[in-house]
Amino acid sequence: MSDLDTRERLIASGAILFAEKGFDGVSVREICAHAKTTMNMIHYFFSSKQGLLSAIMERFSVAIFEVPLRILAKPFRDRDEFEDRLLMFVEETLEALLANRFLLAISYSQGGNLAALAEHQRQFIVFLKQGKRKSFIRNVVDIEMISGLLLDRLVNQVYFSSKIKAFSGFDIVSDMAYRERWIRANLDVFFNGVLSGKKGEMGNDEEGLDS
Amino acid sequence: MSDLDTRERLIASGAILFAEKGFDGVSVREICAHAKTTMNMIHYFFSSKQGLLSAIMERFSVAIFEVPLRILAKPFRDRDEFEDRLLMFVEETLEALLANRFLLAISYSQGGNLAALAEHQRQFIVFLKQGKRKSFIRNVVDIEMISGLLLDRLVNQVYFSSKIKAFSGFDIVSDMAYRERWIRANLDVFFNGVLSGKKGEMGNDEEGLDS
Repeated sequence: MSDLDTRERLIASGAILFAEKGFDGVSVREICAHAKTTMNMIHYFFSSKQGLLSAIMERFSVAIFEVPLRILAKPFRDRDEFEDRLLMFVEETLEALLANRFLLAISYSQGGNLAALAEHQRQFIVFLKQGKRKSFIRNVVDIEMISGLLLDRLVNQVYFSSKIKAFSGFDIVSDMAYRERWIRANLDVFFNGVLSGKKGEMGNDEEGLDS
Repeated sequence: MSDLDTRERLIASGAILFAEKGFDGVSVREICAHAKTTMNMIHYFFSSKQGLLSAIMERFSVAIFEVPLRILAKPFRDRDEFEDRLLMFVEETLEALLANRFLLAISYSQGGNLAALAEHQRQFIVFLKQGKRKSFIRNVVDIEMISGLLLDRLVNQVYFSSKIKAFSGFDIVSDMAYRERWIRANLDVFFNGVLSGKKGEMGNDEEGLDS
């Protein structure tokens, strides 16, 4: 087994165990047992448990969002493409968060490094502003103020996935039908909330149906 | 000074210090100094630092949301009242979260007791379903799936207030103009996203303005 493998295993094991039990709830011995290595390998690679934590937290970087941000960066030709990008961006952001949920948990519980989320949001603002310039977005939408609406939703759904499962039975991690329904419902509200003109399938365009 | 005062001061000081430095980053000595009491008072009231933490976490209960939930519980006669209740509910939820932001921080970082948030959300679902029965809400809105959209936003804005301030300069805790703008912008998207028929001031009722 190469050094690189061992180092990676320690990072992966540390992320899982810190996320589950908190930094102080896990011993160096436990991490090494989980990573199937000897105690002095943590010392060798990271000096200390704190050093391992720092290495793990560095992994929660903007690189996690490579795929969704690449989707945002492509120019869109028309409104359909704009909406399509938005949908893919949200789906891929959720994938990225789920794939890195242990890192997310550690970043959150350490009151942590949120530069990755801030950068994600910054690029989303640029994208929404492009859409607004093309009038795909209602003129009154205050983009800077609402750019976090979806990201907060996505991040919390992943961070609290086990709590949400306990309270509601819904499991974003493993239940694909729920994931699909959840994305569709939240994007429906977001689309209707920000886009100029309602989406065709809503069929509710009349003002004051019953008032 | 009565016992009750001392106990409350220990809870308040513990909440502030745990929120700032984490449970393991604070000593019993520090908490007692902050609360201006002697060391053995933590032992007397709570047995241990862990006991104090439990007492603090119990405070993050649904009682925190007494005001916003009372607003939701009142029946609404028409659509204006429904929208009005929604606005007040969001404003008062934000107030409640800001007033209890140290408790929120501790609950979050301990992966904590989220029963209070779950109950808040449960009652919000009931309210939204009433609105849907009266057709104030679009028929396709999947209420159970989107009920957390605003709550996630509100909670994160408060929990991450110091990070948000560092990244963007906006401070929800002390900047009343930002608070006002932020609530208005997010509610605008939410209202447009869920309500049947667009709100009058939007002037964007035509389908496909530019497509």
